[in-house]
Amino acid sequence: MVVAAARLHRGRERRKRGLTLVEGPNAVAAALEAGAGIESMFALASDAIAREIASEGRCAVTWVAPSVLSRIADTEHPRGPVAVLRTPDAAPLTPTDTVVVAGVADPGNTGTLIRSAAAFGFAVVVLPGSADPWAPKVMRSAAGAHFSAPITFGVPVGADDLRAAGLGVVASTPRGGGDPGELGEAPIALLVGSEAHGLPDDVVADADAVVSIETARVESLNAAVAGSILMYERARHRGASR
Amino acid sequence: MVVAAARLHRGRERRKRGLTLVEGPNAVAAALEAGAGIESMFALASDAIAREIASEGRCAVTWVAPSVLSRIADTEHPRGPVAVLRTPDAAPLTPTDTVVVAGVADPGNTGTLIRSAAAFGFAVVVLPGSADPWAPKVMRSAAGAHFSAPITFGVPVGADDLRAAGLGVVASTPRGGGDPGELGEAPIALLVGSEAHGLPDDVVADADAVVSIETARVESLNAAVAGSILMYERARHRGASR
Repeated sequence: MVVAAARLHRGRERRKRGLTLVEGPNAVAAALEAGAGIESMFALASDAIAREIASEGRCAVTWVAPSVLSRIADTEHPRGPVAVLRTPDAAPLTPTDTVVVAGVADPGNTGTLIRSAAAFGFAVVVLPGSADPWAPKVMRSAAGAHFSAPITFGVPVGADDLRAAGLGVVASTPRGGGDPGELGEAPIALLVGSEAHGLPDDVVADADAVVSIETARVESLNAAVAGSILMYERARHRGASR
Repeated sequence: MVVAAARLHRGRERRKRGLTLVEGPNAVAAALEAGAGIESMFALASDAIAREIASEGRCAVTWVAPSVLSRIADTEHPRGPVAVLRTPDAAPLTPTDTVVVAGVADPGNTGTLIRSAAAFGFAVVVLPGSADPWAPKVMRSAAGAHFSAPITFGVPVGADDLRAAGLGVVASTPRGGGDPGELGEAPIALLVGSEAHGLPDDVVADADAVVSIETARVESLNAAVAGSILMYERARHRGASR
């Protein structure tokens, strides 16, 4: 069982079995609270949260030694628990504000964007070429938010698909774009590009609008920060127009 | 020389010699452009940017094999260059908007906050208990921004020190605080707490104001994202009131 769980660090194994790993008391609690399906759990005998979940009969808990837990966990000295969760099917596109993670390779940045999307009422599209949204490192950065926002993944989604779903295509760039506060009322697909190169030129050229955050003294913001600020700004605007 | 540079991954060695490492073409270029003092550089013979810097006579470049570069670099497969830079002295507190990094242990989050501070015109205080601002991992996340914002580090800075410097003390919390857009004109010290626990209760209780970002569905935002959004909001407000 430990070996089978540890194999979920591989993308192919996750896709084949429809399972992933989430680690740490806060992320596990947040995932369960948001209705994630739990398959099993591994925890240290000293783990109070795991004991609570076990006593509620929510899933089978395997009590393991620290050396065993660290083989399943993503961190070096896990305090556990590590839960095996069922990954939901890819969500269909809907006419609701959506962040499109396009070529964000860093798992921490992809996870942070999913977390911010849940916080600001956005759906998420993770395009191939970004970090796998169900990788344990991404799960860890998102802190359980995967189950609080609909996530589309595993398929290429182009501008035409987004428009067909009723979304205006908005490209984010480090500079030269318009004010993110002036995007109007219709739902948008906000495209966030790679850490090193941003969005490809043809994607920006084909967008319905281009937005930038005004900054001084630095080349660009961190990709997850830029995307999060734009989602924040959008949520604020949504709130103000209600 | 390679051994001496590799030792700069240790905090004690960095402090003793007043040097640190910065890695990658963008971060090195940004640091040099912002006026960072460069001591030496290590690069692959194929590195066009390093050849340009060498031809301009800005510093001595040591041409090394990939296996040697990876001993100095922070990443596994560095494309280089890795520069040895002089760390400036700790900046004094001034009556200008300042972000106070209080117990942010993750180097990526601390670096991202420094990057956003430079982008939004904030000075930075990194308190002991946070990641060392001059650690190579922090340098990498900040993408060269260390030399574009004044940084105070290495000393405990309390609320009274901040007030004596003319700063209003503002605590950020995941919820329950006021609107960050309504902080008035006087310069602030914005306190950002740890990823897991936020700011200590007594620090929040002693602050002149408490602010929160309105979110739904998640426990909290990533610490670097929350701090960056608050700095963004402040910079926007500053711009609007000019």
